[in-house]
Amino acid sequence: MEPFKIMEIKQSIFEDNDQQANQLRESLKAEKTFLLNLMSSPGAGKTTTLVKTLEILKNEMRLGILEADIDSDVDAHSISKTGVKVIQLHTGGMCHLDADMTKQGLLGLGTEDVDCAILENVGNLVCPAEFDTGASKNAMILSVPEGDDKPLKYPLMFSIVDVLLINKIDVLPYFDFDLETVKEHVKKLNPNIRVIPISARTGEGIEEWANWLRTEVKLWNEK
Amino acid sequence: MEPFKIMEIKQSIFEDNDQQANQLRESLKAEKTFLLNLMSSPGAGKTTTLVKTLEILKNEMRLGILEADIDSDVDAHSISKTGVKVIQLHTGGMCHLDADMTKQGLLGLGTEDVDCAILENVGNLVCPAEFDTGASKNAMILSVPEGDDKPLKYPLMFSIVDVLLINKIDVLPYFDFDLETVKEHVKKLNPNIRVIPISARTGEGIEEWANWLRTEVKLWNEK
Repeated sequence: MEPFKIMEIKQSIFEDNDQQANQLRESLKAEKTFLLNLMSSPGAGKTTTLVKTLEILKNEMRLGILEADIDSDVDAHSISKTGVKVIQLHTGGMCHLDADMTKQGLLGLGTEDVDCAILENVGNLVCPAEFDTGASKNAMILSVPEGDDKPLKYPLMFSIVDVLLINKIDVLPYFDFDLETVKEHVKKLNPNIRVIPISARTGEGIEEWANWLRTEVKLWNEK
Repeated sequence: MEPFKIMEIKQSIFEDNDQQANQLRESLKAEKTFLLNLMSSPGAGKTTTLVKTLEILKNEMRLGILEADIDSDVDAHSISKTGVKVIQLHTGGMCHLDADMTKQGLLGLGTEDVDCAILENVGNLVCPAEFDTGASKNAMILSVPEGDDKPLKYPLMFSIVDVLLINKIDVLPYFDFDLETVKEHVKKLNPNIRVIPISARTGEGIEEWANWLRTEVKLWNEK
């Protein structure tokens, strides 16, 4: 038996996703559960970053992870090893989660004992940017090997996130990737974005990122 | 003025994409135009690989490139510098091209003087795998930094392609990426797949890949 639940998510029947998203956000607010929506390309390092983040935060807040994938469960296994509660969501081929699908996942996970839920969205820079999941905050990871032109090519994704993690900075010497160029492009699209360079492998920057998340969870439960 | 055409692709109105795809494939066959559908995650190196490939093949066959992107044109600029005919297709937020959208693009490009057309699909491992574009052959690029678990997570994509390029092998020493593991997983999903490790940066493997393409274009025009 798997150490976590696997759930087939049903395609949403609601026409107005924004309304569903706002309702979900309000109900999460009322029950004091913060929800982070974490997005990236395939292979940018969402799961590795999450594992490192959970190791730092798991003893100071109650965490719960939603792993959305087309149909595998390798990521849920990795998360499960940290001891943090996790559910694997299968999107049935869908390239994103909308608010109703997220709500199904949260019900499957159970949020009554969760201060901070994190949704690892499907690896994709297009579709997830178009659907408000009802999250309290949105984060994305861009990894150095993907190239510094990505904000030009996927502007919507960079416009809608509150924080951008630039991962794999330990391999910066081996790639033509200009950190300042990325920051400049991103700030043009999204002046209020917070940019945090990290390496999930070496741990560099993870403390700064965990601090950001810690602060946001606190603000969410106070307001 | 741009050195290439920019075209807004209309969403397809056809219900039966498979039928549209087969019709397109037949008409391309009749006019002796080979069509390659090239797919990958964002940042896996589609454009860089294409530029290297065009440099090798442009003096021995008539090429034409369709660059599909959400709304930028940086890739068409890169291709345009090789002197090869290129058109920039904007998908209006769509995360893939289907057969009808591809046909619109081919009409915009003009294929009467093209032996080999290459469609650089939207950077995405989910949606493009679900739609037959009408291509003669399908190729994908997986890059080393994305990780060797990708065939487990995006099995459909790896199942439907004829050739898999494993790019950025020049950075293999800096990543936990096992080439043999990938080959093993991929062959289980797709026993007839051809796997070619390359580095678009150093040029390693590009000649083998160009050879594969050269042979396929020849077979297409002979049969």
